[in-house]
Amino acid sequence: MIINEKYQSIRQQTIDFCSHLHPEDYAIQVVKFASPAKWHLAHTTWFFETFILKAELDGYVEYDSNFNFLFNSYYNNVGSRVLQSNRGNMSRPSTNTIFAYRDYVDKHMLDFFETNPKQKLLDLVDLGLNHEQQHQELLITDVKYMLGHNALFPVFNKDFNLVKDKNTAVDTVKISADVYKIGYQDRGFCYDNELGVHKVYVPDFEINNFLVTNGDYLAFMEAGGYSDFNLWLDEGWAWVNAEQIKAPMYWHQIDGEWHVYTLSGLQKVDKNAVLSHINFYEANAYAEWKGMRLPTEFEWEVAAQKLDWGKRWEWTSSAYLPYPNFVKENGAVGEYNGKFMSNKMVLRGASVATSQNHSRKTYRNFFHPSERWQFTGIRLVK
Amino acid sequence: MIINEKYQSIRQQTIDFCSHLHPEDYAIQVVKFASPAKWHLAHTTWFFETFILKAELDGYVEYDSNFNFLFNSYYNNVGSRVLQSNRGNMSRPSTNTIFAYRDYVDKHMLDFFETNPKQKLLDLVDLGLNHEQQHQELLITDVKYMLGHNALFPVFNKDFNLVKDKNTAVDTVKISADVYKIGYQDRGFCYDNELGVHKVYVPDFEINNFLVTNGDYLAFMEAGGYSDFNLWLDEGWAWVNAEQIKAPMYWHQIDGEWHVYTLSGLQKVDKNAVLSHINFYEANAYAEWKGMRLPTEFEWEVAAQKLDWGKRWEWTSSAYLPYPNFVKENGAVGEYNGKFMSNKMVLRGASVATSQNHSRKTYRNFFHPSERWQFTGIRLVK
Amino acid sequence: MIINEKYQSIRQQTIDFCSHLHPEDYAIQVVKFASPAKWHLAHTTWFFETFILKAELDGYVEYDSNFNFLFNSYYNNVGSRVLQSNRGNMSRPSTNTIFAYRDYVDKHMLDFFETNPKQKLLDLVDLGLNHEQQHQELLITDVKYMLGHNALFPVFNKDFNLVKDKNTAVDTVKISADVYKIGYQDRGFCYDNELGVHKVYVPDFEINNFLVTNGDYLAFMEAGGYSDFNLWLDEGWAWVNAEQIKAPMYWHQIDGEWHVYTLSGLQKVDKNAVLSHINFYEANAYAEWKGMRLPTEFEWEVAAQKLDWGKRWEWTSSAYLPYPNFVKENGAVGEYNGKFMSNKMVLRGASVATSQNHSRKTYRNFFHPSERWQFTGIRLVK
Amino acid sequence: MIINEKYQSIRQQTIDFCSHLHPEDYAIQVVKFASPAKWHLAHTTWFFETFILKAELDGYVEYDSNFNFLFNSYYNNVGSRVLQSNRGNMSRPSTNTIFAYRDYVDKHMLDFFETNPKQKLLDLVDLGLNHEQQHQELLITDVKYMLGHNALFPVFNKDFNLVKDKNTAVDTVKISADVYKIGYQDRGFCYDNELGVHKVYVPDFEINNFLVTNGDYLAFMEAGGYSDFNLWLDEGWAWVNAEQIKAPMYWHQIDGEWHVYTLSGLQKVDKNAVLSHINFYEANAYAEWKGMRLPTEFEWEVAAQKLDWGKRWEWTSSAYLPYPNFVKENGAVGEYNGKFMSNKMVLRGASVATSQNHSRKTYRNFFHPSERWQFTGIRLVK
Repeated sequence: MIINEKYQSIRQQTIDFCSHLHPEDYAIQVVKFASPAKWHLAHTTWFFETFILKAELDGYVEYDSNFNFLFNSYYNNVGSRVLQSNRGNMSRPSTNTIFAYRDYVDKHMLDFFETNPKQKLLDLVDLGLNHEQQHQELLITDVKYMLGHNALFPVFNKDFNLVKDKNTAVDTVKISADVYKIGYQDRGFCYDNELGVHKVYVPDFEINNFLVTNGDYLAFMEAGGYSDFNLWLDEGWAWVNAEQIKAPMYWHQIDGEWHVYTLSGLQKVDKNAVLSHINFYEANAYAEWKGMRLPTEFEWEVAAQKLDWGKRWEWTSSAYLPYPNFVKENGAVGEYNGKFMSNKMVLRGASVATSQNHSRKTYRNFFHPSERWQFTGIRLVK
Repeated sequence: MIINEKYQSIRQQTIDFCSHLHPEDYAIQVVKFASPAKWHLAHTTWFFETFILKAELDGYVEYDSNFNFLFNSYYNNVGSRVLQSNRGNMSRPSTNTIFAYRDYVDKHMLDFFETNPKQKLLDLVDLGLNHEQQHQELLITDVKYMLGHNALFPVFNKDFNLVKDKNTAVDTVKISADVYKIGYQDRGFCYDNELGVHKVYVPDFEINNFLVTNGDYLAFMEAGGYSDFNLWLDEGWAWVNAEQIKAPMYWHQIDGEWHVYTLSGLQKVDKNAVLSHINFYEANAYAEWKGMRLPTEFEWEVAAQKLDWGKRWEWTSSAYLPYPNFVKENGAVGEYNGKFMSNKMVLRGASVATSQNHSRKTYRNFFHPSERWQFTGIRLVK
Repeated sequence: MIINEKYQSIRQQTIDFCSHLHPEDYAIQVVKFASPAKWHLAHTTWFFETFILKAELDGYVEYDSNFNFLFNSYYNNVGSRVLQSNRGNMSRPSTNTIFAYRDYVDKHMLDFFETNPKQKLLDLVDLGLNHEQQHQELLITDVKYMLGHNALFPVFNKDFNLVKDKNTAVDTVKISADVYKIGYQDRGFCYDNELGVHKVYVPDFEINNFLVTNGDYLAFMEAGGYSDFNLWLDEGWAWVNAEQIKAPMYWHQIDGEWHVYTLSGLQKVDKNAVLSHINFYEANAYAEWKGMRLPTEFEWEVAAQKLDWGKRWEWTSSAYLPYPNFVKENGAVGEYNGKFMSNKMVLRGASVATSQNHSRKTYRNFFHPSERWQFTGIRLVK
Repeated sequence: MIINEKYQSIRQQTIDFCSHLHPEDYAIQVVKFASPAKWHLAHTTWFFETFILKAELDGYVEYDSNFNFLFNSYYNNVGSRVLQSNRGNMSRPSTNTIFAYRDYVDKHMLDFFETNPKQKLLDLVDLGLNHEQQHQELLITDVKYMLGHNALFPVFNKDFNLVKDKNTAVDTVKISADVYKIGYQDRGFCYDNELGVHKVYVPDFEINNFLVTNGDYLAFMEAGGYSDFNLWLDEGWAWVNAEQIKAPMYWHQIDGEWHVYTLSGLQKVDKNAVLSHINFYEANAYAEWKGMRLPTEFEWEVAAQKLDWGKRWEWTSSAYLPYPNFVKENGAVGEYNGKFMSNKMVLRGASVATSQNHSRKTYRNFFHPSERWQFTGIRLVK
């Protein structure tokens, strides 16, 4: 696809998702880690304005000089910014203004494409589009968090069916011990944290070709999984007790029956569906209970070609650390991934909310072990 | 005015103020003590639905059974409710739904008036209308807080001029010591906390017939008022240091000059205008600095007939406590005032944001000594 | 008693109490508001060193220049100081060093008395001795708090019987409405907050000549007092719920029977004994439940001559505010009382832990309404 | 050494260290993560009483049944326990009682050794002794933390010289890429987290045979290391800003010169001495500034034979995760290490405070990346 069509197509997907939002839905931040829809719309636009238009397009006039402060996320190199926990305090600029901002930037981006830009700049556009796709997924999970914590359990869109979520395979995959090459080796787009191809010794292992289901996890719950401290990491056990956790996020027991909030509303839990919205502590405790374990990210990557994956972000047992030979780029773009490499675990795969064409087997997603508002799942290894 | 006209008139004033809000403005809660506009709109309506329509109108069908949970403020007698700090998490029900709720309840209230209700119920309607007027003032101060803490300092309405805020008098009023009667003695509406007429011995005193101005307060600031601990109450001094307070709320020093945020935007501080947005600790420190003091609420009430008052809520030196013979009503209405009688100070007067016909000289407003988002001011006594 | 004997006698009482402490007991701070014994010993000594010896005794050599920083409590005029919540972090200077400090200062104080000091300085010594007596009471209540929160419920001294705590009277006292003079009018020592004699109109009232007993309060508990929100002030209800309060401080239900921790160990609750260790919210809720009320501090003072008082600090319904004509002294001594006049309630009387000769009917004790580690009680008024 | 002699020798080392403590030093807990000396003394004793004497010695009579509650650290399998942050609230049992407890348990342990116990039990004794040695190191670092945060900077023991802390080597060590075996392969004592010998592919690398010195780190500080966000992990940067960090722990700038608190008192920083008391974020930022990196724990272990190590706990770039084939033991002993495997980084080496015979090249120490009260250091890799 040529760049201007690709640009327009990806940018449009963000807008399409928003068509089901009410005006007030755009503005609210319920929890620190989930940003308002308005902010996602503006921030992804700010990325193109800041790194392409202001930097590279002659004569470009900034849309509004306040926006750099308002819509910078975490790029210290680009100046000061609104604290993440205050993003929901901004009723202004209005959503209408932000849509106008998107239009303005899009129009100039199309102009920019006419200038026949160098490959290096097109690579930066590609980073911006991948960035937008990441925020498309966050937009879904953040809206779900907001509506799922509303006492009315509102239906976002009754036809919105994110879930292709039954296992299709029942077998396991066996891999032989060897030294394998890990990391992105193709020529397309990837993030810097996938680079630094390197060798890793991987032992013999056998990995499930299917994910843990709601029914499997209910068995763990019913066996007292949430009250047996021997199954839990120390921090996980503290979390279970402090938050009084009894079930995955979005699960509610109503008249003795488990229900789950989805973007199409509250539904009975389908035991055959793939489990979602558990954190690393829960994934690890479940594995412990089964007498199995989570895969390392290297095992996962080695096995990936033979696996049926792509419905859930799968917790691995690997901490998110730099690959040998990891090189941060200079300046703001270098802040994209590297600085988050502490106290996070790697997730591999892709979820039902992941944008199309935004997954690959070397992709390293990462979250703090306590987080569970993403569409996360469990795959076990023996 | 007959009751249905009065009802419609007061209800309409709430709507009129909202005409300048953008859709996102309705939904956001920036700080625990300031509720979203949407919530004010719904809660004042809930009051009439709960205490009149559901209780007294035969055949009335509740608009939505969830609303009792969502829009109860603090009435424990009426069931569980959303925590005050979570009111801003509700993007739904939408503002449109809440306007429909208002219309529905208003229509039934008009029907109710046709039933020729007893005086006791009309008194309850009166309480509801006074309640709505209180929320009209909170609506203004809460919207001001939200926009005033937005980095863009948005103009709410450039023609919105709340401020008739120059002193007109320059004299003082002398009162002779005597035993005076305190409390509401007329036949109109008043709150329960004004009742219990009782005698209070009031000493000789001389009270200013004017309020402290911005210029007066600037002199205090420039004399180091915020850094001289001898002027401050212990809790006030802790607050100044913890919050690094240097000026009244909404004041910003820009290029060496003091500006103040107003609902018509950021303006230079007018030294002749009456000071606003200071808390009790600041009022008390200022009085200390001047070698004067704040009036007691009894002194204020005794002097009120001779005073030019009504631009600011004036901090008194009286704690908010029950009058002798204070009687709480039974049930939810009894929760209106009495249970807040600890750790608050009484304010007398009325502010530029107070609804018309919602002030009287026996009115006892009350806030925690640290609060300053209301239009508060200082009157001194010798 | 001549001054040097009086000085030695009061200073010795502090030491006597400490004879039952173990070495580790001196050092620990369990909670922000309760200081370690070591700190009380040093701070009361620091008072004499700072305000008398360093200021007035020629040639006096400071014991240790660090002590001003370590043992200043809250006197901003005397320089910076250790935060109250960090007093328990100081294992050094050792208790032995602090006893040596006391000896050193005492020796120089006796020298000072030989210099035939002026009355103004003797008044300051008197303030220091009253200050020491206040800390003697705090020493008792702070040690009780520390040991009472130790899982072993240690016996401080099995013969330590603070409690002369049965009511002796059963009658009530009637007072006629009139304008009364309030405040200290004698010639002896009093605190500045008792001065400013002034007139107060006090209505007719009838006050109990006895305090609420454990048995009375148990009836309130058994009637569901802690779960009926209508009885509670809003802040009190929040406190009950946040802290899951079910009984007075130091009460423990063991095998279905109520016990109470005392300095002579854990004992069964004696229903005839006078209730202790309840806060203002509890006192107020109890009064509400009885259909009575707490006295104002003015009523209490007017009735005091006819009352049997002195076993408990009795919560009044009066906020702690300056009397008319209250004058703060200049400098550090002026910080003694005045700056605490917000968000506190007045208690009148004296407790079983109050030092001898340290009570009078005009004495205004004050604590935040939530505090209950003092020996507090309830007297009711109709 | 035969077991009873070894037991007595290691137990005595704990006592020896304490000979310099003042009575109050035993009782205080300054910060959540640093336990009082008294608690260390009791807890190490509790370990032997619980896992050996109560479990295995016929007719053993428990010293005090409360001690299981008081001195359990984190073993959920052994019942409820005092929260770590409340360990400093216990003035009782007194230090004397705890020494008596040690004597009692020691006497019975010697009896136990006479019973000719099975190897499995002797292994458990060995675990207990290694456990005691770990607490000997914590005792030193916790006492240092307490005294180092006392405004008097007390000298613990002026002859206490923990520091053999100059680098002796100046060279680097080169290692060739290969698949290496990692984990403990000898027959002596090791922790469970070192077991599960497994292969790891390690690339070519060159590692310094010396640690970063104070002088090296001063250069980083003077070059603005603490204010250049590009050098820091995101969480590290947040920590630097929240805590206003400007230097390693225990460093104080006095009259323009850097000093450091040591157990022999405050001293000028020696530029040639090895740096200590920095956390992982600081270690990582320093490496970033040097254009180098920290070693992985595998690189460290492979290189260890050729390295001069043992003065500091050296931060590695490896997260603390289970080795392949890691097996937790059943019951309480299984809680020793495994449950801490999240959000920690591995440190290798040994520090000046590490007990003799308590280090080996496969030892995996672990702390949260923000912690720096241990004697931690930095070794760099190219």
